[in-house]
Amino acid sequence: MAEEQNEYIALASRPQGTPQMENFSFNKAELGNPEEGQLLVKTLYVSVDPYMRGRMKDAKSYAAPFQVGEPITGGSVGKVLSSKHPDYQEGDIIAGGWGWQRYAIVDGKGQRKVDPELAPITTALGVLGMTGLTAYYGTLRIGNPQPGETMVVSGAGGAVGMIAGQIGKIKGARVVGISGSDEKNRYLKEELGFDEVINYKTDQPIREALQKACPDGIDVYFENVGGDITDAVIEQLNRNARIPLCGQISLYNQENPELGPRILPALLTRTVLLKGFLVGDYADENVQALQELGQWVREGKLKYKENIVEGFDRIPEAFLGLFTGENLGKQLVKVAEE
Amino acid sequence: MAEEQNEYIALASRPQGTPQMENFSFNKAELGNPEEGQLLVKTLYVSVDPYMRGRMKDAKSYAAPFQVGEPITGGSVGKVLSSKHPDYQEGDIIAGGWGWQRYAIVDGKGQRKVDPELAPITTALGVLGMTGLTAYYGTLRIGNPQPGETMVVSGAGGAVGMIAGQIGKIKGARVVGISGSDEKNRYLKEELGFDEVINYKTDQPIREALQKACPDGIDVYFENVGGDITDAVIEQLNRNARIPLCGQISLYNQENPELGPRILPALLTRTVLLKGFLVGDYADENVQALQELGQWVREGKLKYKENIVEGFDRIPEAFLGLFTGENLGKQLVKVAEE
Repeated sequence: MAEEQNEYIALASRPQGTPQMENFSFNKAELGNPEEGQLLVKTLYVSVDPYMRGRMKDAKSYAAPFQVGEPITGGSVGKVLSSKHPDYQEGDIIAGGWGWQRYAIVDGKGQRKVDPELAPITTALGVLGMTGLTAYYGTLRIGNPQPGETMVVSGAGGAVGMIAGQIGKIKGARVVGISGSDEKNRYLKEELGFDEVINYKTDQPIREALQKACPDGIDVYFENVGGDITDAVIEQLNRNARIPLCGQISLYNQENPELGPRILPALLTRTVLLKGFLVGDYADENVQALQELGQWVREGKLKYKENIVEGFDRIPEAFLGLFTGENLGKQLVKVAEE
Repeated sequence: MAEEQNEYIALASRPQGTPQMENFSFNKAELGNPEEGQLLVKTLYVSVDPYMRGRMKDAKSYAAPFQVGEPITGGSVGKVLSSKHPDYQEGDIIAGGWGWQRYAIVDGKGQRKVDPELAPITTALGVLGMTGLTAYYGTLRIGNPQPGETMVVSGAGGAVGMIAGQIGKIKGARVVGISGSDEKNRYLKEELGFDEVINYKTDQPIREALQKACPDGIDVYFENVGGDITDAVIEQLNRNARIPLCGQISLYNQENPELGPRILPALLTRTVLLKGFLVGDYADENVQALQELGQWVREGKLKYKENIVEGFDRIPEAFLGLFTGENLGKQLVKVAEE
């Protein structure tokens, strides 16, 4: 293997506004040999996620910015080709963060072994990986929906949103999903059991659609999008509402963000709890959380949806698709056969 | 007493923008007799507080709006003239919420007995009352400043702000106060031990003043004001910063609030905790909290400042003064001699 060439995708330039294909470059590189404690891994699937847009800016954030010219890192699943770490052996399937590369040499430490017998290995990037954990921690550690409460999920047709909404249902809340398409909404309501759905593009004004869908106000807002939708939700929060602040996808591509109404007066008068969070903040609880998520999946209480594009070359395109709002569920790219 | 006339101040009309004298009316009324379980009380001091502006709007908030024509309620200290409640007797000093009236008939339940031997009775409206408790809960239950962390307090020359800052100091944080006058700032730094102070009117741009005063970023922001000051603070928050959201005084008088930068992206990327709170949310802890506040006052660790205007007729004027930013510390009105 060491003789073969690797290929990776780098950030060619920092996007201004919506990322374009030209912001990415395909690069060849020699691959070294794993040293003691390391593994050589062949990428099978990579995950593309909205949060990666934030890392393309050269700004203070929870994750360090991507460096121009360096491989773009992110969630990946791969097969161990050779191991110099005692916990792994050739043929093992692992999940890690080496990102948009065909092969990688990684430290054994920091990878997670995936059991193909338990669930399809793609779920390690979705419902039984970062996506599921993000929905789990945001909903349960911050949102804490109670039976009979109303929980609104924005970006509800996205990977995290649809899991968050289902966890709200499992906890007995009335769940209202907001997405940008009737097709997504049909899926949310008919397949996932959301109580109400709003298409923010056609159910206008959004304030009225929310009032109709949430006659008792809003107790939990699982926030993925930001902007006008969020402004409308905040106006209708109940006293002691909770906002797990998970994403702001409508604003990620704005270079000079538009102004908005000031939200602190409403958060004050309704004594709202708002918490920006990162899945890694709760890493100590991952084992237990993955067990519970897996249990819900096996019981059929938690369904997941994957949208898999094939081909290493299509990774940037799949990433760009996240911002056109077309994807339903978890967006993955299949890079190689096992 | 029952033959005497009472006098109360009512909301004559809802203010548009900054409240004016004409929004208040002075009214005479017959006073009845206390029934079983009630007390007749003579008002000695009343408290005027910024949050009362919010209750003058006819809008959903944590406290019900004042009704036009009804006495304005709020923190008061008085002397029991006659009691039909077993826990109180003539001559007792009590604190309650009957507000802007010379006399009142109140339920014995819901009042708090004040011990004049322990501290001046005015403190029951300030450092050992709602003001102190607000600072205490916001700082300790939400802000949770740690030794070496940087805590910024806006409205630092106000009643709550100056106590919050001192509690931050007691907990070992580096405390930076923002107020609108050099005189206030001198007091905060020289008398109360604030580490740094910023005059938002003259230390412009405020961003640069903050950067200079907070070279390690900001971990706790005790928020009283809203608007531009808060925008600048949010830009400089550290990862996992906490914001006790206590007030928004700069926005209370805006009928058509101006737009501002959207703050959720920053709160997301720094994984900030923000909580709007109300002192009553923590009422179960009041006994313990007042003990600790009293202990700090006796030990000289917690100083308080009262600004006392004399005369029932001057209550509206004292209230209006809260919005001109002139008051240092707790604003009270003395209504009668004991």
